[in-house]
Amino acid sequence: MNESLRENPYSALQRVFHEPSRLAIMSALGGAAEGLSFTELKEQCNLTDGNLSRHLKTLDEAGVVDIDKRFVGARPRTTVFLTDVGRESFVEYLGALEAALQRAAEAMAAESPSFNLLGGLTEPL
Amino acid sequence: MNESLRENPYSALQRVFHEPSRLAIMSALGGAAEGLSFTELKEQCNLTDGNLSRHLKTLDEAGVVDIDKRFVGARPRTTVFLTDVGRESFVEYLGALEAALQRAAEAMAAESPSFNLLGGLTEPL
Repeated sequence: MNESLRENPYSALQRVFHEPSRLAIMSALGGAAEGLSFTELKEQCNLTDGNLSRHLKTLDEAGVVDIDKRFVGARPRTTVFLTDVGRESFVEYLGALEAALQRAAEAMAAESPSFNLLGGLTEPL
Repeated sequence: MNESLRENPYSALQRVFHEPSRLAIMSALGGAAEGLSFTELKEQCNLTDGNLSRHLKTLDEAGVVDIDKRFVGARPRTTVFLTDVGRESFVEYLGALEAALQRAAEAMAAESPSFNLLGGLTEPL
């Protein structure tokens, strides 16, 4: 992780990805090389049509997702992908989030010796 | 970490703590059993007077910080502390953030074998 991020991770959290629903959308797309349909995304992220549309518009305007609308036979089908820029900047955002979380965990641990927040993160992926 | 948090961490991120400057403030206070003065907090969080005041008001209204204003000799002195409720709910928030980060990291790692976001977090505290 770069040093300035570790010094001040908070500035990098002023981002399109920090909104919780958009974090969920980016995570879902991050694991889907083939993209996800609007319906899959809606279900995985537990969002309404309206909310998902609104957040996708924001992400599309930021250039971090591509939205592909086409007809498959007579039915319209929307597929959403991460762009390369989206993947790269999301990874950078996650690094800032990690730095912020680590800093908070260290602070809390210093005052509560039994505090063990990072237990989950030390499990192997 | 409780299971529902792991299932859907995003709902728990709809919180007063998710705003980056407030995350910075809570982290700083989390490591300061004696509280921090307004000036210390401002410097540690890299905020202006106006921004810090505004965020402290939000945190105070949520009951997660206590703001103690008194005179020390002729000078006013403001000291800010985490409340017990604040400490407890901040730890819960950090758990949700950890779950969201872990989910994102797993998704990204599945598509980018060289991806190693959690390196920093597996270092010993």
